[in-house]
Amino acid sequence: MAHQNEKVVVLLSGGMDSCVTAAIAASQFEVAAMHSDYGQRTATRERQAFEQISDKLGIEQRLVIDQRYMAAIGGSALTDSRISVPDFDPESAGFEAIPATYVPFRNAHFLSAAISWAEVIGASRVFVGAVEQDSSGYPDCRPEYYQAFQTVAEVGTRPETSISIETPLIRLSKAEIIRQGLGLGAPLELSWSCYRQGEIACGRCDSCALRLRAFQLAGTPDPAPYSFESVREADPDSKDVVSFS
Amino acid sequence: MAHQNEKVVVLLSGGMDSCVTAAIAASQFEVAAMHSDYGQRTATRERQAFEQISDKLGIEQRLVIDQRYMAAIGGSALTDSRISVPDFDPESAGFEAIPATYVPFRNAHFLSAAISWAEVIGASRVFVGAVEQDSSGYPDCRPEYYQAFQTVAEVGTRPETSISIETPLIRLSKAEIIRQGLGLGAPLELSWSCYRQGEIACGRCDSCALRLRAFQLAGTPDPAPYSFESVREADPDSKDVVSFS
Repeated sequence: MAHQNEKVVVLLSGGMDSCVTAAIAASQFEVAAMHSDYGQRTATRERQAFEQISDKLGIEQRLVIDQRYMAAIGGSALTDSRISVPDFDPESAGFEAIPATYVPFRNAHFLSAAISWAEVIGASRVFVGAVEQDSSGYPDCRPEYYQAFQTVAEVGTRPETSISIETPLIRLSKAEIIRQGLGLGAPLELSWSCYRQGEIACGRCDSCALRLRAFQLAGTPDPAPYSFESVREADPDSKDVVSFS
Repeated sequence: MAHQNEKVVVLLSGGMDSCVTAAIAASQFEVAAMHSDYGQRTATRERQAFEQISDKLGIEQRLVIDQRYMAAIGGSALTDSRISVPDFDPESAGFEAIPATYVPFRNAHFLSAAISWAEVIGASRVFVGAVEQDSSGYPDCRPEYYQAFQTVAEVGTRPETSISIETPLIRLSKAEIIRQGLGLGAPLELSWSCYRQGEIACGRCDSCALRLRAFQLAGTPDPAPYSFESVREADPDSKDVVSFS
């Protein structure tokens, strides 16, 4: 394996794309994994996926950062004035606690953190599992975006620092990502794509549906468990959170 | 006044440069002010300056964001593995609680938040009080840096969004900044530059010394109060925090 002594940072959300990206990076480099809690609905479950994938890939150096201010930025669209970031109680977090807030320019927050950390720990690259196919309507999954951020990273870090932003999946389809992941032994069974918080993926939300279709196209079963039974017992048309225990 | 109906975001740390920048923006636009608590030593006092300056300039829309994960990124240089962001107790915060951590690429975190918020609230510009003269050794106060980030903002936001990054002070000297601020009625007496947490600036730390010298060069007294007496009572050579009450 090449470059085994070169350290790199991987942004590891715990989803399928970042899981494959981490496996790609770990096959060539010493990986440090960064995970952001930004107030997303399934933060607790994604954090668990992050830890389990890191364990499986032998990633020792990890940093979990609290970027929940992003929920306040997104939510602020609804209000007018004097908004403070509320204290957040992880115990009571769930569908009701955090509004469904898309934060514009979201990936810049992750990239900034990854580049800061890379400079601090002496990492030469930042790996991001961005996929252009996902970028419908949102521009920060496109190659041009990462090229522009690369320039910021070059201009905005010390002269002797050189950090390369790597997006190995950006041009791939979901089926190609799955095939590449399986070829590298990426622990896809530990990755989390479901929009619903739970121990096991629901198999019914949009994200699960897309994932299952991608595995179908890749011609291989999804190694992750699904709780179809639980979902069928619940109201299939309900948009409310379904709790799986 | 021009563009009074145009909304802009100002990054307002509470220091002298951001105070003058806010006054410049407020003289032309409707201002929304953003402030970051990133685990800096004088966070509580800077927050107070932010609120007082906003009050004085009539800035109604404010957002305070918690970016204290940046302290963990900076601090992580000292450690090896499995670092989590610790829970932070604002009551016990002080010199001892937060290490003196310069975070590389720091301004990207502020700019990302400001651009996200600008897109959410429909602001057309982001004002930043960066000063090139300050950039000794650190590259993210230079015009090239803001030009590069401008490209990221263009590529990374919606096609219909156009957010311009404005750095009105970037080529000015501190004395010129003071003169411009006084000309606009910027409430410099409320701005906070001191490295020491307290109600009144110490007048003795590096940052106070630079500020006082700039006022000397501008040929005008600093309207902010200083607690020279308190400092003389303490050990002038001490690098430890001096508590002023």
